[in-house]
Amino acid sequence: MNRVLPLFAFLIAASAQDPSSTPQFTAKGELVRPQNYREWVYLSSGVGMTYGTGGPSRTPVFDNVFVTPAAYRSFLQTGTWPDKTMFVLEIRSSATEGSINKGGNYQTGFQRMEAEVKDESRFPGKWGFFPFESGANTSKQLPVSASCYSCHAEHGAVDNTFVQFYPTLLDIAKRKGTLKIGAQ
Amino acid sequence: MNRVLPLFAFLIAASAQDPSSTPQFTAKGELVRPQNYREWVYLSSGVGMTYGTGGPSRTPVFDNVFVTPAAYRSFLQTGTWPDKTMFVLEIRSSATEGSINKGGNYQTGFQRMEAEVKDESRFPGKWGFFPFESGANTSKQLPVSASCYSCHAEHGAVDNTFVQFYPTLLDIAKRKGTLKIGAQ
Repeated sequence: MNRVLPLFAFLIAASAQDPSSTPQFTAKGELVRPQNYREWVYLSSGVGMTYGTGGPSRTPVFDNVFVTPAAYRSFLQTGTWPDKTMFVLEIRSSATEGSINKGGNYQTGFQRMEAEVKDESRFPGKWGFFPFESGANTSKQLPVSASCYSCHAEHGAVDNTFVQFYPTLLDIAKRKGTLKIGAQ
Repeated sequence: MNRVLPLFAFLIAASAQDPSSTPQFTAKGELVRPQNYREWVYLSSGVGMTYGTGGPSRTPVFDNVFVTPAAYRSFLQTGTWPDKTMFVLEIRSSATEGSINKGGNYQTGFQRMEAEVKDESRFPGKWGFFPFESGANTSKQLPVSASCYSCHAEHGAVDNTFVQFYPTLLDIAKRKGTLKIGAQ
């Protein structure tokens, strides 16, 4: 067993630091597109979500949110996000009245995605935002003057993230006492 | 290396047969509630999906679909589902105009879930359906006269499953040639 246990430990460590689920940056500081985010942990979806004025659409977009598995497991324990947490927000088109469907909306083609990364040594505000156009393999960080930074900082219920819209995590944050007072 | 490789093979096999992601049945043939399905692979969501008559709701339900990770990886390779595949359909309430949201819908509380399990030796039709009321730890199989069996068999685009509503898998089934002709 003496030879087996260290190997187990190595494999567990390797799994926790799976490069495909850890933020990877180019020499210029651009984020490498995470290819496997659809295999990360799903947090929630919205449909037709608006934050200003604007009417409803018959085929509104869906947004799906995924987070890296190691960060998810850490949140279950602590109610907050560890360094190197990475989110992907995926935007998809919708359709209605296709196949056997008679009403409501289901998801169709990929439109675009955005990543939000926590890296305390890289970003003065701890978090960085990276939009990915369709097909782009790397993304330049959005400037910190972009509205996503101030909105997440002001309204995110836990550490710059919209846990108020992730029902399974909201319960955990309530139990752990990590919800920002008045953020919702 | 001779001692390391067999251990790797054992660990990979153990991972593929993770009990929490393999259908577990009681002695009476009831399905044990899968506790960790939110950590399986997410396939897609719909909102307010109807299949008959009925008007839209201001707060329609969301449906989220998850599949066991080993079955997902197999689908990526083959375009179809292996034995012991398990799906969970989760139904959640929605809300609108909460927090910073001004329109559209986001997910809130859990309502109920249903599992669809492929077990070729257990079910004459290969697939079984199991509804879980909130809090129930086991579920009795729905009788094969239930409408879900005939609808999935007739309209499911790949092997009794609605791959036409799972955009990332639909592309794979098209490439692998596993879409049922005329099923959509």
